[in-house]
Amino acid sequence: MIITLKPNPDQKQYETLTTWLKNMGLKLHESIDAHVIVIGLVGDTSAVDILLLESMEIIQSVKPVKEPYKAANRKFHPADTVLEIGNVKIGGGHFCIIAGPCSVESEEQVCQIAREIGTAGAHMLRGGAFKPRTSPYAFQGLGDSGIELLQKAKAETGLSIVTEIMDLSHLPMFEYVDVIQVGARNMQNFQLLKELGKTGKPILLKRGLSNTIEEWLMSAEYIMAGGNEQVILCERGIRTFETATRNTLDLAAIPVIKERSHLPIIVDPSHATGYARYVESMSMAAVAAGADGLMIEVHNNPSVALCDGPQSITPEEFRSLSARIKGLRKGMGII
Amino acid sequence: MIITLKPNPDQKQYETLTTWLKNMGLKLHESIDAHVIVIGLVGDTSAVDILLLESMEIIQSVKPVKEPYKAANRKFHPADTVLEIGNVKIGGGHFCIIAGPCSVESEEQVCQIAREIGTAGAHMLRGGAFKPRTSPYAFQGLGDSGIELLQKAKAETGLSIVTEIMDLSHLPMFEYVDVIQVGARNMQNFQLLKELGKTGKPILLKRGLSNTIEEWLMSAEYIMAGGNEQVILCERGIRTFETATRNTLDLAAIPVIKERSHLPIIVDPSHATGYARYVESMSMAAVAAGADGLMIEVHNNPSVALCDGPQSITPEEFRSLSARIKGLRKGMGII
Amino acid sequence: MIITLKPNPDQKQYETLTTWLKNMGLKLHESIDAHVIVIGLVGDTSAVDILLLESMEIIQSVKPVKEPYKAANRKFHPADTVLEIGNVKIGGGHFCIIAGPCSVESEEQVCQIAREIGTAGAHMLRGGAFKPRTSPYAFQGLGDSGIELLQKAKAETGLSIVTEIMDLSHLPMFEYVDVIQVGARNMQNFQLLKELGKTGKPILLKRGLSNTIEEWLMSAEYIMAGGNEQVILCERGIRTFETATRNTLDLAAIPVIKERSHLPIIVDPSHATGYARYVESMSMAAVAAGADGLMIEVHNNPSVALCDGPQSITPEEFRSLSARIKGLRKGMGII
Amino acid sequence: MIITLKPNPDQKQYETLTTWLKNMGLKLHESIDAHVIVIGLVGDTSAVDILLLESMEIIQSVKPVKEPYKAANRKFHPADTVLEIGNVKIGGGHFCIIAGPCSVESEEQVCQIAREIGTAGAHMLRGGAFKPRTSPYAFQGLGDSGIELLQKAKAETGLSIVTEIMDLSHLPMFEYVDVIQVGARNMQNFQLLKELGKTGKPILLKRGLSNTIEEWLMSAEYIMAGGNEQVILCERGIRTFETATRNTLDLAAIPVIKERSHLPIIVDPSHATGYARYVESMSMAAVAAGADGLMIEVHNNPSVALCDGPQSITPEEFRSLSARIKGLRKGMGII
Repeated sequence: MIITLKPNPDQKQYETLTTWLKNMGLKLHESIDAHVIVIGLVGDTSAVDILLLESMEIIQSVKPVKEPYKAANRKFHPADTVLEIGNVKIGGGHFCIIAGPCSVESEEQVCQIAREIGTAGAHMLRGGAFKPRTSPYAFQGLGDSGIELLQKAKAETGLSIVTEIMDLSHLPMFEYVDVIQVGARNMQNFQLLKELGKTGKPILLKRGLSNTIEEWLMSAEYIMAGGNEQVILCERGIRTFETATRNTLDLAAIPVIKERSHLPIIVDPSHATGYARYVESMSMAAVAAGADGLMIEVHNNPSVALCDGPQSITPEEFRSLSARIKGLRKGMGII
Repeated sequence: MIITLKPNPDQKQYETLTTWLKNMGLKLHESIDAHVIVIGLVGDTSAVDILLLESMEIIQSVKPVKEPYKAANRKFHPADTVLEIGNVKIGGGHFCIIAGPCSVESEEQVCQIAREIGTAGAHMLRGGAFKPRTSPYAFQGLGDSGIELLQKAKAETGLSIVTEIMDLSHLPMFEYVDVIQVGARNMQNFQLLKELGKTGKPILLKRGLSNTIEEWLMSAEYIMAGGNEQVILCERGIRTFETATRNTLDLAAIPVIKERSHLPIIVDPSHATGYARYVESMSMAAVAAGADGLMIEVHNNPSVALCDGPQSITPEEFRSLSARIKGLRKGMGII
Repeated sequence: MIITLKPNPDQKQYETLTTWLKNMGLKLHESIDAHVIVIGLVGDTSAVDILLLESMEIIQSVKPVKEPYKAANRKFHPADTVLEIGNVKIGGGHFCIIAGPCSVESEEQVCQIAREIGTAGAHMLRGGAFKPRTSPYAFQGLGDSGIELLQKAKAETGLSIVTEIMDLSHLPMFEYVDVIQVGARNMQNFQLLKELGKTGKPILLKRGLSNTIEEWLMSAEYIMAGGNEQVILCERGIRTFETATRNTLDLAAIPVIKERSHLPIIVDPSHATGYARYVESMSMAAVAAGADGLMIEVHNNPSVALCDGPQSITPEEFRSLSARIKGLRKGMGII
Repeated sequence: MIITLKPNPDQKQYETLTTWLKNMGLKLHESIDAHVIVIGLVGDTSAVDILLLESMEIIQSVKPVKEPYKAANRKFHPADTVLEIGNVKIGGGHFCIIAGPCSVESEEQVCQIAREIGTAGAHMLRGGAFKPRTSPYAFQGLGDSGIELLQKAKAETGLSIVTEIMDLSHLPMFEYVDVIQVGARNMQNFQLLKELGKTGKPILLKRGLSNTIEEWLMSAEYIMAGGNEQVILCERGIRTFETATRNTLDLAAIPVIKERSHLPIIVDPSHATGYARYVESMSMAAVAAGADGLMIEVHNNPSVALCDGPQSITPEEFRSLSARIKGLRKGMGII
């Protein structure tokens, strides 16, 4: 960490600062540069609050030399992390498609869709049992029994299952869930992240709708600091002024994450765009950008299409998209 | 709700739509306008999913006539809500200043600051016991014992206490807390909001850093739908591209909330700007804009100023600000 | 346009409104729906100011049925527009790569780079003669003589040239420029757009850094309304809170534009990300998403790399990227 | 400027870098800090491109010590700038209200409104002659003859006039305009700013809807670098995700500007909020935050209210607001 002082700092404040820093076990390297004092901190600076330093009267600026995340940092773990979930791998060149309905509604619905996506190229089944809804008057999901329906679909098709946790108190219900999803609204629910760090389960961590990539990696760090290194990052769009799509899909997050972290990153084009008709092109773009996988909403009742989200594609569309993705990956020389 | 169809809608889809709407107990008023069919829905449309309708092939657009929040809506509750907390009132012309340190650190610290702000014009004491921190390696607050220290400060000064809850599982520790704060990161932690709706305690609901005013009112609705109508809204800045301040304080939220809701709204200039030197002018602006109160960080160790946040002002600065606010309110003719 | 009135509108205001609308030559279709009066406007509503209507006391809401752009609208022009520039086509399946240095610096620089990109797969040469710089103290470009150097490079390589216009008064200097670029900061310089609408030249219209897709199409409409239908849209990232990249590349703009307009759309990954190391993956993503072309910064002095922008790739990197794009397009079955 | 190198930099690149910096006339102070080389640059660093440096392989980070604006910088000009326009002063404690219609429509309209606002407390008259409109089909203003009507209103009432310039080519028409307004969309029209720097006229520079405060000061610098130091900054809201107001008024820009610059700053609550009913509270807030003035849209035909913008208040409302502002300023002890 590099601290630049203002010209002619107050001597008493200067001593208070340096004493405090030394008491934190840090070594200080001072140099004077164009009449400006620059202090380099050596040691574990992870507990130093940058905003606090910046607020001190005598300090001009503070610049961290190191990223604040460690376990998630590629610098200390150069090789790609590869997760194994059932018989499926993700990361390090292994590509994985997770598909399924927005909400789990009935055994028939979820099993039928699991069969259809399973034969069409999906590697895992997703489905919402607990649903975060903006309105308290909207359908909140089947809860516990929704998870049971997912297990039946798994028993029938062999597909591992992914579903979202909304509160710590629900954790016991997730015993037989293969991948626990943390939704965008919970990306900074630190208490939840800490507890998930104590489980042995893969965690799919969605990016918060207004969180930076660094904050996202810090949330992964919360999980990993607890000992659970099985984290999959999922880009699902950020909130901007543009209203043509529900969110703005930030595909540049893929190369940025690949550079900074060894964790796998997948993309959810369904929630990102909010419209089924944009899912195909954004799926293709995500693959071309280097994503390790996709998470796509698929519904199974195209003739009615009333109980499914506006962002869901049909099983037929999914089958066609899956084939196009295969062609794309061949063209890229990665399969 | 007004649904506009695309020209020449498919007859079968049209019947599916209208049957589905009627089955939800809604009455349909159709009219044809410039060859475009417009359907007005009468009845309880709160369960109708607008995004879902908009995704249907035959639908051009959907426009709600009513806001989706009810309990929080001024239309159904024209008079300002006035909360009574201890001997303090807030809302409906009653102005309230909440002040205190970012984190509770020791009995001496919190009691001294409580005494200082109490004589300087503050009506309630705030202090963080559980701290949401971006990094898992940063200080996470004193937790339970922090709440006990706040209670000691209350016993000594008579000031009611406000502190943040970070997880549902901590709720039992908040029995003697007067106002439970929901932080920006938890504004859409719906499970938490629902449970807080079952308590009899006033809830201070901070706006999420990328949430719209309507989403904020919907989160208040989650609390109120459970039977707890004691909600105070707190604007604390939204996330934008501007980096000169930590967030962008959206003071126009005050007249917007006043128009749409009867709930009191206060402003937190400390977290909004992130710098102590901007707190005074933003406090003044919030009062002039019509806020029902302020929430201000104050630290009590100005000679060291190392363990307090960069956004904290000193007790002396608070005393002077408090006097300026009084002058301002006199000049506005409201006291 | 559908106008919904508030319940029980004032009769006098109602008459004022309807008289005013009729005087604009519009036909009114009124219907009463759940005690709410709904007015459908038939005729040319392009001059009706929606914000103005919404501000009237008796009006609840106004909803346009039609998009405000006409010439750029795919509804009235279903086939893709294909532009021919020299011997190069763009749009309707014709893919075009524009490459070159950020700034034109010398004859040697621009001719060498033109030769290198020409043999590596580029279809046109770009280079800045007039440079929009945030600081008045930064290098502002070679101006007129920069355009002359581009012409020399064209004479030598046969590549058509693209360069940015910064002010209307410079228009005479663009006589021998093949494609005139309008930069992001000038996307709503309406006077400039109008004048470009009178030229017979292809215009490359970059999206403003905080402009919606609809505003972008309206700016294209300004050019087209003057009679010049040769507009290429260029997505180059929008401004958001994320700082890991210079801007946030909005690739979903590609399917949105393809749906709404017949104009070709290309992507500039260099300015969007701001870093050379992210250009390849974002180029690949843009192609997979369906872009009609790319605009890429290439510098020709990799050993020094001091006079080129941080977002520029080397000719070797460009050659490799160009080959990867060809593979990708083959894999997608489009070549 | 402080440059921090990556550990173990390539020796050849290091020499290229230092030679290049020295050739720019800069003195280099190097220090080694925790095995990291830190280079302090002394001299005129205004021409050094930070992004370019950051892109170099061997560089970890670059941190400017000085702001890139000079003429606008309070450091080099500690006293508030006070502008004198006719008999009106603005800045340094002098408060100024500019009011008038969105568009100039007729002599009767503009003269009547000038009389009304003049007696109600306004110090200058504003009115649009050239109107920047998103749609090419919307009313574009009266142009030249609109300016003549403003001059008539000035002749009758003595109020100085403010109107917007949209293109450099219109400059000759602004000879008798007292204050030339640069609109938000032109904040980075650098050619226009440069030319305005050669005029002797006060320039009212609106903040671009997605420009940072630093970019805004850099645009002021463009004008001032040409020799014209009469710049008034005008905050008018920035673009965010919130849709309840047209833009998000960033009132914290007031103390930030006051800290960094000596230039006067005023606020336009009409365009910022987009709704007349929020103008009063945001005007009050701006004054309390320390603004040097306000710019408010007022229309004069409240019974019809069709030809005025939704953000315009009536002369009666303006008179009442003007009185409330006076009370507020008294309460603040500044008059």
